[in-house]
Amino acid sequence: MEDLKRSVLKANLELFRSGLVTHTWGNASGIDRERGIVVIKPSGVPYDTMTEEDMVLVDLEGNVVGGHLKPSSDTPTHLALYKAFPEIGGIVHTHSTYATAWAQAGFDIPCLGTTHADYFRGPVPCTADLTEEQLAGEYEKETGIAIVNRFQGLDPAHTPAALVRNHGPFTWGKSPEEAAFHASVLEEIAKMAFITLQINPAASCNKSLEDIHFFRKHGPGARYGQ
Amino acid sequence: MEDLKRSVLKANLELFRSGLVTHTWGNASGIDRERGIVVIKPSGVPYDTMTEEDMVLVDLEGNVVGGHLKPSSDTPTHLALYKAFPEIGGIVHTHSTYATAWAQAGFDIPCLGTTHADYFRGPVPCTADLTEEQLAGEYEKETGIAIVNRFQGLDPAHTPAALVRNHGPFTWGKSPEEAAFHASVLEEIAKMAFITLQINPAASCNKSLEDIHFFRKHGPGARYGQ
Amino acid sequence: MEDLKRSVLKANLELFRSGLVTHTWGNASGIDRERGIVVIKPSGVPYDTMTEEDMVLVDLEGNVVGGHLKPSSDTPTHLALYKAFPEIGGIVHTHSTYATAWAQAGFDIPCLGTTHADYFRGPVPCTADLTEEQLAGEYEKETGIAIVNRFQGLDPAHTPAALVRNHGPFTWGKSPEEAAFHASVLEEIAKMAFITLQINPAASCNKSLEDIHFFRKHGPGARYGQ
Amino acid sequence: MEDLKRSVLKANLELFRSGLVTHTWGNASGIDRERGIVVIKPSGVPYDTMTEEDMVLVDLEGNVVGGHLKPSSDTPTHLALYKAFPEIGGIVHTHSTYATAWAQAGFDIPCLGTTHADYFRGPVPCTADLTEEQLAGEYEKETGIAIVNRFQGLDPAHTPAALVRNHGPFTWGKSPEEAAFHASVLEEIAKMAFITLQINPAASCNKSLEDIHFFRKHGPGARYGQ
Repeated sequence: MEDLKRSVLKANLELFRSGLVTHTWGNASGIDRERGIVVIKPSGVPYDTMTEEDMVLVDLEGNVVGGHLKPSSDTPTHLALYKAFPEIGGIVHTHSTYATAWAQAGFDIPCLGTTHADYFRGPVPCTADLTEEQLAGEYEKETGIAIVNRFQGLDPAHTPAALVRNHGPFTWGKSPEEAAFHASVLEEIAKMAFITLQINPAASCNKSLEDIHFFRKHGPGARYGQ
Repeated sequence: MEDLKRSVLKANLELFRSGLVTHTWGNASGIDRERGIVVIKPSGVPYDTMTEEDMVLVDLEGNVVGGHLKPSSDTPTHLALYKAFPEIGGIVHTHSTYATAWAQAGFDIPCLGTTHADYFRGPVPCTADLTEEQLAGEYEKETGIAIVNRFQGLDPAHTPAALVRNHGPFTWGKSPEEAAFHASVLEEIAKMAFITLQINPAASCNKSLEDIHFFRKHGPGARYGQ
Repeated sequence: MEDLKRSVLKANLELFRSGLVTHTWGNASGIDRERGIVVIKPSGVPYDTMTEEDMVLVDLEGNVVGGHLKPSSDTPTHLALYKAFPEIGGIVHTHSTYATAWAQAGFDIPCLGTTHADYFRGPVPCTADLTEEQLAGEYEKETGIAIVNRFQGLDPAHTPAALVRNHGPFTWGKSPEEAAFHASVLEEIAKMAFITLQINPAASCNKSLEDIHFFRKHGPGARYGQ
Repeated sequence: MEDLKRSVLKANLELFRSGLVTHTWGNASGIDRERGIVVIKPSGVPYDTMTEEDMVLVDLEGNVVGGHLKPSSDTPTHLALYKAFPEIGGIVHTHSTYATAWAQAGFDIPCLGTTHADYFRGPVPCTADLTEEQLAGEYEKETGIAIVNRFQGLDPAHTPAALVRNHGPFTWGKSPEEAAFHASVLEEIAKMAFITLQINPAASCNKSLEDIHFFRKHGPGARYGQ
């Protein structure tokens, strides 16, 4: 559990250090699947004084089971994703500039090249609008459910990111650190896609090229790295 | 009074450190409501050598009542806002890039997502053009009056920012530090809104979603932070 | 003369430090009007090892009269400006991103707000294309002449900058440091104007507002600073 | 060989330091023409711990002949270029933001001014789409061949850069360091061209002006630098 707390703190600090998160606009969490415990950033605490002890422990129903602070207000969104996507070990939420702009635009980020295809299969999906009923209910939980619904027919391990409409990105991975890495990749491909479409509104990418790049880094035939 | 001077200096330095202000293009002030004294940055003094002693004290009529330097040339704008908005404790003016571009465009910044809605209810309003008569009069004071007029029907505590047409942003808050924080938030949402509308000129945000986010952070039902 | 060399070195290093110049893409010079000597950056020397002793002294006809290196290849442009604009004491040339983009677009930068009006009266002018004859002649000198021709009817003290078409900006001032400061202001207003016109292609500024801001900082009625 | 390894490491680290490469998205190599040995970055190794000993040696057929790590997955692309362009001594590949956006747009970068003309004669060419057959074959080698094919009728010494469609830029030079320098120039002119065309979609540059600038820095008549 100490390892997980350290890992969650590290991911949170990395988001801040890299500029993906400014002020307190973001959070990272990680899960211990065996114990069913999620470690998450506390709500509204500044990054520059945050310590391992400030991390909050909650169970999958959202009950605080450790730590001395209130958990992130986005905790119910994280929990909905951990429940629906059993293969993931860490989740990150940011308001990074370009990914958030795509979320505000209400558009999926199309795959326009190999930088995108190396990490995300196909477009990064944007959720549907929440209904008035969902907004009036448990809003943060409904946000998680909106992501899960949007992933029907998609593999969350192949597309480890979603844009929540009019809000911002959530990314995930095998660990909190990988989720933070995907948040960084997402911001860069969001920026590149914006510029690309300003240069050529008809830009697109060949599906076979996308597949080559994705499977060069993922699955049994991967041949990238050491 | 020493606390207020320290707080005003801190806000001014934070604007410079964060890049919201370059050269001498900006100023922060704070008010001691009991004594009716405003502490403000001196005019045209570089940030890197500025000290607490350089802060200037003026009364609400603009008379210098302390300090050894001339106050910011924008002082009459600050005073007009302190008089009209009795709940505010600090004011900041910058020429930050994206907020100034919106001011130059002459457009309100529309609310396109939760980053905006977390801090500003509805659009960030842009003032009307000053008339030739107002320009020929007490220009800086008229600038403040233009903001106040634009806020008829708006709550300055719910929308702590205005764009002065063809000029740049003013923000405010309970303290000089909060005003500086709002200047930072404003610049980020101005940048996001610019990118969003380049991606999707028809982007918009659901009003209920805006309300949920605003009231998650403000008022009696707030549940963000510790 | 040592003071001028120090001042020219300082301006060159400031351009590099602030990011207005990358690699060796820029130069600053200053003039000693009494002796008719111009001090200028050497050609193609990296900024990080440059010293006062590397500065090159030339007379107004371009003869090297001091220093151990070749002067900047843009020296004839600087000399043409010093001859035509007797009130200026320093000149800067950069390839800063946004000002260069306007030069490449071949457009004057319109005045869209007070940030611009505080330092430049009216648009920042872009030169005409050089003719094939001028290009085949003394190219760098013709570049200076193109600026001078573009300033017919304009006051170089009121508009201390020009865009050389398809090339980049030249700025000037009372000293090398002021010329470098104007290069920084120009880049910022070039960026703001770009964003402004993306938001609102019909943006413009009221002429009376421009005049108030310009004369708040310039001439006998100036009331900015200490 | 130690010199070349040092030079390749230096170029790789410079790419990372300058922000042209984030994460592990890029690589630099150099060639010893006499021995027919290429030194290249290892695959997927983080920049901040990379040492000279991590560099990998391969022959022109791609056989590893030195080093303890796997070479970059882009090695076959580098080898195809070294074989086809006998005058080059170093190659760099990045996913730098603006150059990659142009590659994703599928457009050549047009020459719009002297910053471009100083280093690249004419447009920076973008390759054609790979066919399904080429994608199904030796993909990384075919990528190199696509660049070589695109350079029919072009001089790689005069245009030391190519955009691989939907992928990103490759640059080259006399040495690994010069290739890295060209990667930096390319990113800057890619950004400037993007902004220029947003300001004026009809922007263009005079061919004679381009020639003057190119030959001011290249060939027997060069007169730039010391």
